[in-house]
Amino acid sequence: MMRYKLTIAYDGTKFYGFQIQPKDRTVQGELEKSLKIMTKGIDVRVHGSGRTDSGVHALGQVIHYDYPGELSEKAMFKAMNTLLPKDLVVQKVEVADSYFHSRFSAKEKIYIYRLYNGEVRNPFTRTYASWHPYPLDIDRLREALTYIEGRHDFTSFASIKDPIENKIRTIYEARVDYDSEKQEFVFLFRGNGFLYNMIRILMGTLIEIGDRRKEPEEMQRLLKLKDRKQAGPTASPLGLYLKNVIYD
Amino acid sequence: MMRYKLTIAYDGTKFYGFQIQPKDRTVQGELEKSLKIMTKGIDVRVHGSGRTDSGVHALGQVIHYDYPGELSEKAMFKAMNTLLPKDLVVQKVEVADSYFHSRFSAKEKIYIYRLYNGEVRNPFTRTYASWHPYPLDIDRLREALTYIEGRHDFTSFASIKDPIENKIRTIYEARVDYDSEKQEFVFLFRGNGFLYNMIRILMGTLIEIGDRRKEPEEMQRLLKLKDRKQAGPTASPLGLYLKNVIYD
Repeated sequence: MMRYKLTIAYDGTKFYGFQIQPKDRTVQGELEKSLKIMTKGIDVRVHGSGRTDSGVHALGQVIHYDYPGELSEKAMFKAMNTLLPKDLVVQKVEVADSYFHSRFSAKEKIYIYRLYNGEVRNPFTRTYASWHPYPLDIDRLREALTYIEGRHDFTSFASIKDPIENKIRTIYEARVDYDSEKQEFVFLFRGNGFLYNMIRILMGTLIEIGDRRKEPEEMQRLLKLKDRKQAGPTASPLGLYLKNVIYD
Repeated sequence: MMRYKLTIAYDGTKFYGFQIQPKDRTVQGELEKSLKIMTKGIDVRVHGSGRTDSGVHALGQVIHYDYPGELSEKAMFKAMNTLLPKDLVVQKVEVADSYFHSRFSAKEKIYIYRLYNGEVRNPFTRTYASWHPYPLDIDRLREALTYIEGRHDFTSFASIKDPIENKIRTIYEARVDYDSEKQEFVFLFRGNGFLYNMIRILMGTLIEIGDRRKEPEEMQRLLKLKDRKQAGPTASPLGLYLKNVIYD
């Protein structure tokens, strides 16, 4: 029995999220299916650094599992990439010690959010970026993002379905750049953890600030209010990417 | 009756090419279907600047048609984009004079070819770039591309199914850049016209030159030979994009 840590990437378009479901196609489901073929029928439970919703992509998700056998990192890499479907790939395999846990050992996570801002819809990014066809003011977005950075209670930006009691998280970095060639705003969020739907609710609020429906300072007020109903809508999952999970 | 010139973009992944087919989903088929809804049943024939194969994408294809009615450019733009499927978009509508022909009036075309060169397959570019996981020497590629530029008989690089007799074309520009972040080579070809499969056969040959199976000078010899069988294989359509069609 050996513990493996894998870095994986997936195009979330055709997955019903990360977490295994009885009927729908999920990332965890596909990983466990491939492992079961490798073990000739023994079930292997896969643990992820966190769930991603239906439609959310991953550039560097981290998972771990205990495998009943001792394969080299190279052999595990090759076997998994041979068995996995084309929209899910293993980028790196490492043998981990038994204390390693993809979720509990994680120190930081980085997400990015792609927001296409062109006037005409883009057939190439329809599932890879969300679309807002109205002008957005980058200075207003940047001001709002400064209020997110730091240690805050993010109750206003968590799904009311999130059962976690402690809603305090630290955001080390929250920034946005504009790619003029692609007509896209690319947001980056780096923090010690994120609540359920937190980035999508932050994005829904940021879009309202960027197009002048709300003031940038509203972000400060919302953090104090601790009321999900006061924040903006939950933005589309299609622009969201889990970019990296960072361990010690 | 008015003639309209449209600039369109499409994700070629789910189209069986541009040209209308009795059963399969094509770009021309979808355009004509939308127009027939607008005319309440009158068939409108769509003419493209050229066909694109199954899987080939377009960033700026140009089409024209004679429409039995007089819609403003804005109204035509809006109606078409409402009716067309999500992987096909109208970027621009212009009323054209009756001498304009999307194919015969075209002076230049620009194609790009995206070649992903990472060692691990990329779930995000599986239908948007072709994949060659072995080292490619950019200096060798660039030397080979210099031999393509100019006025040449491209018989060696045309499908034997191409019925066109005159196989002389002028390539004004043939270059390649490497995008290190994406691990992609991006080729650009600008010319007064291209034969059937010409870029894909050039690409199949360039890949053999880039990874040292053939010498760059082979490109010169192949142009002189005028024999399709001597050139490289026809590369995948998935990396090919019709970028622009240029008119006077």
